[in-house]
This record gives sequence, structure tokens and C-alpha cells, in this order.
Amino acid sequence: MPSRIKQFLLGRPLSTAEAAHQRLSNIVALATFSSDALSSVAYATEEILLALVIAGSAPLKLALPISMGIGLLLVIVATSYRQTIKAYPNGGGAYIVAKHNLGTFPGLVAGASLLIDYILTVAVSVSAGTAAVTSALPVLAPWRVHIAVAFVVVLVVANLRGVKESGVLFAGPTYVFVILLGALIIVGVARYFMGDVVAVRHIAVQASSDLTLFILLKAFASGCTAMTGIEAIANGVQAFRQPEAHNARKTLAWMAGLLLFMFLGTSFLATVTGVTPVETGETVVSQIARGTFGTGMLYYLLQAATAAILVLAANTSFADFPRLGSIMAADGFLPKQLKERGSRLVYSNGMLLLTAVSILLLVVFAGDTHRLIPLYAVGVFTSFTLSQSGMVVHWWKCREPGWHWSIVVNGVGAVATFVVLLVIGVAKFAAGAWIVILLIPLTVAYLWWVSRHYRAVAVRLAIPPEEAAEFDYRSVNPMHNHVVLLVSTIDRKLVRALQYARTLRADKLEAVFVDVVGTDAERMRKDWERYDFGIELTVLESPFREIVEPIRDFVRAIPKPDHDHVVTVIVPEYVPESAHDVVLHEQTSFWIKNMLFAEPGVIIADVPYHSDEYEPEAPSDTAG
Amino acid sequence: MPSRIKQFLLGRPLSTAEAAHQRLSNIVALATFSSDALSSVAYATEEILLALVIAGSAPLKLALPISMGIGLLLVIVATSYRQTIKAYPNGGGAYIVAKHNLGTFPGLVAGASLLIDYILTVAVSVSAGTAAVTSALPVLAPWRVHIAVAFVVVLVVANLRGVKESGVLFAGPTYVFVILLGALIIVGVARYFMGDVVAVRHIAVQASSDLTLFILLKAFASGCTAMTGIEAIANGVQAFRQPEAHNARKTLAWMAGLLLFMFLGTSFLATVTGVTPVETGETVVSQIARGTFGTGMLYYLLQAATAAILVLAANTSFADFPRLGSIMAADGFLPKQLKERGSRLVYSNGMLLLTAVSILLLVVFAGDTHRLIPLYAVGVFTSFTLSQSGMVVHWWKCREPGWHWSIVVNGVGAVATFVVLLVIGVAKFAAGAWIVILLIPLTVAYLWWVSRHYRAVAVRLAIPPEEAAEFDYRSVNPMHNHVVLLVSTIDRKLVRALQYARTLRADKLEAVFVDVVGTDAERMRKDWERYDFGIELTVLESPFREIVEPIRDFVRAIPKPDHDHVVTVIVPEYVPESAHDVVLHEQTSFWIKNMLFAEPGVIIADVPYHSDEYEPEAPSDTAG
Repeated sequence: MPSRIKQFLLGRPLSTAEAAHQRLSNIVALATFSSDALSSVAYATEEILLALVIAGSAPLKLALPISMGIGLLLVIVATSYRQTIKAYPNGGGAYIVAKHNLGTFPGLVAGASLLIDYILTVAVSVSAGTAAVTSALPVLAPWRVHIAVAFVVVLVVANLRGVKESGVLFAGPTYVFVILLGALIIVGVARYFMGDVVAVRHIAVQASSDLTLFILLKAFASGCTAMTGIEAIANGVQAFRQPEAHNARKTLAWMAGLLLFMFLGTSFLATVTGVTPVETGETVVSQIARGTFGTGMLYYLLQAATAAILVLAANTSFADFPRLGSIMAADGFLPKQLKERGSRLVYSNGMLLLTAVSILLLVVFAGDTHRLIPLYAVGVFTSFTLSQSGMVVHWWKCREPGWHWSIVVNGVGAVATFVVLLVIGVAKFAAGAWIVILLIPLTVAYLWWVSRHYRAVAVRLAIPPEEAAEFDYRSVNPMHNHVVLLVSTIDRKLVRALQYARTLRADKLEAVFVDVVGTDAERMRKDWERYDFGIELTVLESPFREIVEPIRDFVRAIPKPDHDHVVTVIVPEYVPESAHDVVLHEQTSFWIKNMLFAEPGVIIADVPYHSDEYEPEAPSDTAG
Repeated sequence: MPSRIKQFLLGRPLSTAEAAHQRLSNIVALATFSSDALSSVAYATEEILLALVIAGSAPLKLALPISMGIGLLLVIVATSYRQTIKAYPNGGGAYIVAKHNLGTFPGLVAGASLLIDYILTVAVSVSAGTAAVTSALPVLAPWRVHIAVAFVVVLVVANLRGVKESGVLFAGPTYVFVILLGALIIVGVARYFMGDVVAVRHIAVQASSDLTLFILLKAFASGCTAMTGIEAIANGVQAFRQPEAHNARKTLAWMAGLLLFMFLGTSFLATVTGVTPVETGETVVSQIARGTFGTGMLYYLLQAATAAILVLAANTSFADFPRLGSIMAADGFLPKQLKERGSRLVYSNGMLLLTAVSILLLVVFAGDTHRLIPLYAVGVFTSFTLSQSGMVVHWWKCREPGWHWSIVVNGVGAVATFVVLLVIGVAKFAAGAWIVILLIPLTVAYLWWVSRHYRAVAVRLAIPPEEAAEFDYRSVNPMHNHVVLLVSTIDRKLVRALQYARTLRADKLEAVFVDVVGTDAERMRKDWERYDFGIELTVLESPFREIVEPIRDFVRAIPKPDHDHVVTVIVPEYVPESAHDVVLHEQTSFWIKNMLFAEPGVIIADVPYHSDEYEPEAPSDTAG
């Protein structure tokens, strides 16, 4: 039954051999990996304007040169990632590049930054998309968190169906957004050059501060949110069709081109129309679109597409977080459960982890975009800086033809992204960036701890080759086995467990009963004698009404002089017929097994009794 | 470590022998069991006024006669419950009385009604208390749900510490509320009779409807919320000191007296001052208090005490829900985990269940009292009606001296509470009562299903006495045991499991390895030969990257001609050193054990390997 639900939601299992067919065409990959980057066009220009408006309406026109600066940085970073893809055709995210060129520690910092950033991307973009929905339908506002969580659930189910299916499913809205925003820019620019400037509402804003360098830097840093997500393709090269690197580079160029066009176009229109940003209320893009298209069909389509792409930006995280998690798990820095692919060839555990953490974030921050957004971007720019620095070292080492030029490009990129990182860290520190600045070292410490643990266990469990060569594994001695049968009731499941206990080759066989209530000892001793099992029964007292602890103490007290002496505890269990019966049974055995598992020298043997092993007549339906 | 946290939160475990010392003195019991009933004084009069004000300001003075009617009903119900306690000194909630006198089915209806009502009491009273806090400190309003959940957590921790500790802890606020509200009534009434009527704001309200019988009935029904919680003492007789019944009856009389005085006093003051109820905004009690005491120290103390007792009303549920759950579990109508007492002699599982469900309710209804309150009271009055009817049958059967009079009291009570139930069901149906009207039969069906299941299992597992007498349990044959050793890696834990496997008396011993990745088969076969274990290894293919399913299919295919043939699957497991390491290991074994558990004829033997069984040198601290 649960497996049928799973199959209905996720589709039939895919065999490993089908992996190649699950690769993405460039057109689907562009939508999958660029929804994060492209969606930022919906708010990046506005962020610049909001930073500038503190110095009044006059400096708003500086948005265009600032955007062009960001555009240049974007070209540098994109060029650098294209080079990275060539150098690392198996997937060259910041983690791999930094780890390979700068060392394990910088690699972990980059990896931690990216993991945190992917989680924040889901929370921020889903709450932004939800805000777009509740702005249009205010009646839904009280259910904001519920709607946001529902979006995440839809995203994870679609993504668990496989990277190809979710890609095809979500490509539509991305392209609708690109076409409509492209049309807006072309129409707006054409009208400007024909002298017919789009009319928008102008509000004269009083300056509450002089125009300082800090405000300019802050405007620049705010606009840099346009660049989040640009690294997505470099992380996901293995999702492309062969030749992977070639296709990924081509798609990255397309993405960067589209992003540049849409971002600069929006900033250009915002500057020439002189639109005024407002903290809460209509967005800048909406104001421009209303002025250009009028409040009609096209306008509403663009608004809907904006809401859709804001939610879909989270999809990029669902493509990249599990992939990065798998790479890091394979390196032993994350729990190994994240390493393997699930039934639909995607890294299901990574997706479920991403879902759980981002839902937690949405609930804790009550789905409020404004509280979440300052946490954003610190992670991305940390990974940008490390990845670019890694590439500088790479060129220095390999000295391929043209390495001088490559070093300059990556070097400029590294310095520029590092400056942006500092500006973001300072400008948004109090508003929430401190949380991420704190989380990155904590995450690195966790990754380190995981790795240390796995290495320690591997050392403990490994058999040194010389020992393996010398030892005769055929002639190993059998153990001394002391068998303890747990008794709760004398019934068929006990009789079966007893029969199994007699099957084992044991030094000793005895039975144990815990008198939890404090009044059952005598009755049980009599019953035991009456059945005449031929096995000694010990009744354990339990003054604190515990069942697990007396058994543990009893088992612990059995002498085990060396590792060749073990105690086998036989747990008779009734097997519920169906999943919903489970809650009515088995809790006690579960805790017993759980606690005994930690006892050295104890082996637990479950002897399940299936109700169909003996079929009595149906029970009567009247209550006792 | 977790057990130390548990001990810090809950205190040292109490032995069963200490149970008698955990009984409550009457003064603490009054606070524990009456916080629910007494807290309703804070809103019952207001509910009556709100129902009447639809017909304008004029009929507001009808609040006093209506309150007196409710007061009469309260006396009848309280008298009836005092008789119930005498007749059922071991605890005579509606469930026991109805089941004993009317039969199993009415008993289950009463039990289901009470269980639902206790859960709603927690949700309603905690959200009402939270609303009182956020009214005073509006800055906390966005964290409403978080605060409500925090209150529930504090309540459950205090109650898990034991009924005595939580009683002493929470008695203070209850008595402060009683004293302050009593003072308010005495001062107000004294001033009225001295001709100095308290001045409150009068608002002339336009009638939006004629004064119909339905409005009067609705006002009566709304005021009946004053009676919720009056059954609490009858359910909890066993928490009192000896003689339990005597003490419980005395405490119930005190509670009813206090409730009557406070409720009628509030209604009297509301009528003579002519206070106007407002749907949202200042409460009626607050208006009267402000007029009587002035907006000073005393007024704020009363408001704080009101907020406190509203939250503490939930405490009554924490005393009664787990107790009722335990009684019903002992009768086999609820999962048996609810039956036993935890380490502090309280029914911990019942408390945790109550906590989980009420937190769920708070989150789903966003902690909104107004959305929750219509669900309330249907359950209470269903149980009142059934309990009173049960007592009528009881008197009819036992014919003790004075039984005629008792039958009249309980008969009037049964009819009156039934009429109120109908009025509430009709008047509040659309607003939410339908949910409870739907939930009660569903809960009854669930209780029935649980009971049917337990009886069916008992029949299946029981050994008929004649069979037990005839059968010779000493001479039962050993089973045919086919042992399968699961292999994941060749390491020390495998070697230990292999040694254990050799210890068993087996028809056959073989090893199995699942090639999940699809490329490990050859390497594993070679390694296996090199170690020369002398045991045959089968490598299973897994095209869908599953690990559990190929093992299950392999085990299932082993011939088991009858119940004397079993397969023992040996699972070598690494035991993590500490709880936080668990997440890094064991997941696979867990799923394997979970799935094999359901396979007939399969026994699972866990062979844990403890890291301290072999102590190598510490691992180096540099990453690979």
C-alpha cells in the first residue's frame, strides 16, 4: 500500500541503466538551472533603488551605472565558470574547485556556504512567490505559511519524480517569464528612443542622508543579488547530455546573456522612467509594466509569471543541493545516506533533507521574505570568492595556453566578489547576515566532525592486510552462547520462540519475566510450572515500573569472560497484520532491542509470530 | 546524557510504593481540578450578553435570570456528580458510569466526547491565555502560535513531574484569581446596595433582530460554557487522599459553591451596571473591574490572574485526559501504551499524546480562540447527558434509601443537559460544532476497532487450556535452521558475525552481498575468495539500486516446507559510540530488519560490533 502511493506520486522505479536517458536537453537544462538566477531580475533593480532612495530621489539615476558595474562582474563570473566547466567536466562547483586547488578547509567553507545558500534559496524564493500570490488574493494571507509549505511539497514531489520530469514540468513558466519580461524591455526601450517615455508615478522623496560611498556600496551589494544562482550550471554539469561540458558551457553563456539583457534592460527602464521604489506595495517591475502594457491581460500574465518564477527559483536548489550533498557524502563529509540515488535516479535523501530544513525555516520565520532576505547572498559570494581564487591557483599550476589572460579574469573576479562579500557582510550584518556568518563555521565544524568520525570507524573496523593474510578464517572457534528467552505472556508466540531457542547450540538456556505492575510474579511462576517447559524462569522485580532496565541489568550481570562469550536475547514478537496495527503493538520490544543493542556481547534475535501461522475461528464481535 | 536531561526536567523516578504520597490535599486538588471550571467565569457572562445583544441593549438585563437558570442546572449537575462519586469511589467519569449502567456503546460515546473535549480544552484555554498576553503586549502578536506552543510545553513538563508537583505549582494563580474576582464581586455588590453603582461605558446597540426564543436559548447555551470542567473531580477521585470519595465530594461542593458565587456575582454586576459587550476589545469582566477598582494595581493584578487561570484551565485536562486514557486502555479500547504509569507515577504517554494533538490543533487553527470555541461544549454536554442518564438507571437498579429523590435529581439533570446539548449543536453547528459531531462517531469507531483488534489478537495467540494440558512442552522438536549472513564490507564486524553464525546449529550457512552500485560484484567475489571463509557467497544484482528488496526476495525463495523450517538472517552491525553518531550509521540495517520482520519464517539476529572490542591507535586528523 505505501509502496503503491509512492509509485503513484513518483512514477515507476528507474533502473541504473536508464540514467543516460534522464539527461537534460539544453533547453530544459537552461530552465532548470537558471530559474534561480533569472528570477532575481524581478527584484534586483528594486533593491538598488531602495538602497539609493535614502539619499532622496536625485541619486536614483545612479542605478544604471551601478547595474552596469554589476553586469561587468556578472560577465567576469560567468566567464570564469565557463572556464571552470572546461577544467572540471565532471561538475565543478565551488566546493570541488576550492578543495582541489586551495585545500580541504577552503573547500569545506565553500561547500558549507553553498549548502546554506541552497536552503535559503528555497525559503526566500518560496516565501517571495507566496507573497506575490497573497498580494493578489489577500484573503489567503492568514494561510501564508501553509501555502509556502504546500509549494515546497509540490516542488519536492516533482523533483523526486526525477530531474527530467521536473525540468519539463517547470520549463514552461520560466520561458513565459523570459518572453514577457523581454517583450516589456523591448517595447519600453523602443518607446524611449521614439521619444514616448512610459509614464509612471513619481514621488519626490526627501533625502534622509547624504549620498555617501557606503550608500553606493550598499546599492551595489544589494544589486548583486542578481548574480545568485549563476554557479548552478557549473555544479550540475553531469545533468547535461553528452558532451556534457560543451553543452553546459553553451547553456551558461545563454543564461548569462539572458540575465544581463533582462537585468540591464530593467535598470535602464527604471532610470529613464524615474520610477520611485516603495518599501511595501507595488514592485518596480510592476509599475513599469503597468505603464508600458496598461493594466490589462499582458500585465497580469507578467505578474503571474513573476510569481511562478519566484517559486521555481527554489527548483534550482532541488537540482543542486542533493547533487552537492552526494559529492560531499562520497568524500565522507556528510552522512552516507546522502550519497546514493533513489528509485527515480535522483538523490532522494538530499531532497528530503532540503525539504525538511527549508520548511523549518519557513515556519520559524513565518514565511516572511523581508526577514529571510538579509541572510541570503553571504553564502553565494563566499563560494564565488573561493571558487575564483581556486581557479587562479588552477591556472598558475597548469599553465595552459592563454593562462595569463585567464588568471587576470579570475583574479579580478575573486577580488571583486570578495569586496562585495565584505560589503554585504557589513551592510546586512545586523539585519541577519550574522546568522549565516555564524552558521558557516558551525557547518564546517560539523562536516569536519562527520569526516573524522567516518575515518575513525573505518580504522576501527578495518582488518590490516598482514592480519588477513595470516589468519585462518576457516578454523575460527564457535562462541559460547548463553541464551535468554524474554517472557511477557505464555502464548503461541512464546512457544514458537522457545522452540527456536532450543534450536540454538547454547551453553545455557533460561527464561526471564519482568513484573512491571508489581503483583504478577506469583501468577506467572505458577503458570510457568503448570506448562512444564523444562526451562528455569527468573522473575525480575521493577520498583520503578520499567521493563527495559531490569532486563538490561540481568543480561549485563551474566559473566562474559572474553569476546568469545555472548548472550543471545530471544525476543518473541507478534507481527501486526497491517501497518496501522503497528501502533497497537511492538513498542516494548522496540525499546528492549534498542537498549540491548548498546550492550557489549549481546546478540538480539527477533522471533516474529505471524498471525496466519495458526488460524483460529474469527473472534466474536461483542465487547467483553 | 538524555536520561540526565530527563531527570533534570522531571525529577528522580518515583517507585510504585510512593504512589500514596503523591495524593493531593483537598486544597491542592481544588486548584488542580477546578481551574477549568473556574476559568470559565472569565467569559461565560460575556457569552450570554453577546448572544442577547443581537436583540439590542434592552434585553441585556435578561442575563441575570438566564444565569440563575444555569446556576440551577449547575447545582443539579454538581449534586449528581457528588452522588456519582459515592456510587463510584474508584473514579466515576461519564465513561465508567455510562458503560456500567447503559452499556458499552453509550460508554464509548461518553469516553470519546470527553477525550475530544479535553484536547479542545487545552487548545482553547491556552489560546485564550495567549490572547490575553498579546492584548497586553501587542508586539508579541506575530509569535502567537509560538507562545501558545511554549505554554503547552511548560504545562506538559510540569505535569510529567507528577500530579503533586504540578498541583502545588499551579495552585497559586488559581487562588489569586478566586480572591481577586471574589473581592471584585463583594465590593461591586456592596457599592450597589449602598446606591453607589459602578460606572461603566454604555453603548446603545441597535437591535438587528427581534428577541426570539432561539436567541434566549442560544444565550442560555452560550452561558453553559460556565459548566465545562465540573466533571473533572468525578474523573479524578483516585488522586485524592483517603478517604478518597469523601474528600472528592467535599472538594466538589466547594468548587460548585465558588463557581456559583463567582458566576452569579459577575452576571449580577453586569446586569446592574448595564455594561455593553463588544465582540473584540475589552472584556466585560475587565470593564467592570476598571469601573470598580479603577485602572490601578488591583485591576492589572486581576487581568494577569485571568490570563494565568485561562492557561491553567488546560491543566485540568492534563490531570484527567491521561487518567481516562489509561482506564480506557485497560479496557482494551485504546493502545495499551496509554495504560502504564511513567517514571513519575503519571500516565506519561497519555500526556504526550494530549500535548501532540493539542499542539497540532493550535498550529492548524493558528492559535485563534474564536475559531476553536464553537468546537467546545458539544463534548462536555454529551458526556453530562450520558452520565446523568446512567445515574438514573443506577438508582433504578440499586434502590438504595432515597432512590426516588436521586432519580428525580438525575432525571432533571439528564433532560436539562440534553436540551442544552441540542441547542448548542443547532446554534453552533455551522460555526464548527459539526466538526465535533463528526469526530465523536469517528472516535467511537476507532475505539471499537482497537478493541476488536486486541480481542482478535488475543484469540489468535491464546493456547486453549485443553491443548496446554495435553501437549508436552519439554519434548518439542528443534527447528531446521538455514542461516544467511549479510555482507556489506569485509571487516571486523563481519568476522564477528561470521563467528556467531558458526556457533548456531544450522542446516546450511551461506553469505549474501547486494551490489547496489552495479560495479562492485567482481571486486567483492575476489576479496571473498582471498579471505577463504569457507562459506559460499551469493552476489545479488540490484538494477533499481535497492538493498532491502533483493535480500527479501533471496530469503523468501529459500524453501520453508513447514513451520519448523526457519531462515535466520544475521545482520552484522556497527554500534555507534554515542547517540549523535546514530544518524551516521545503521539506516540500512534498520530498513532490512524492518522489512524482514514481516516475512513469515524469518528470524533476524543482530550481531552488534562495539568499537571498544578492538582498540586501534587514534586516527590521524588530516583529511584524505
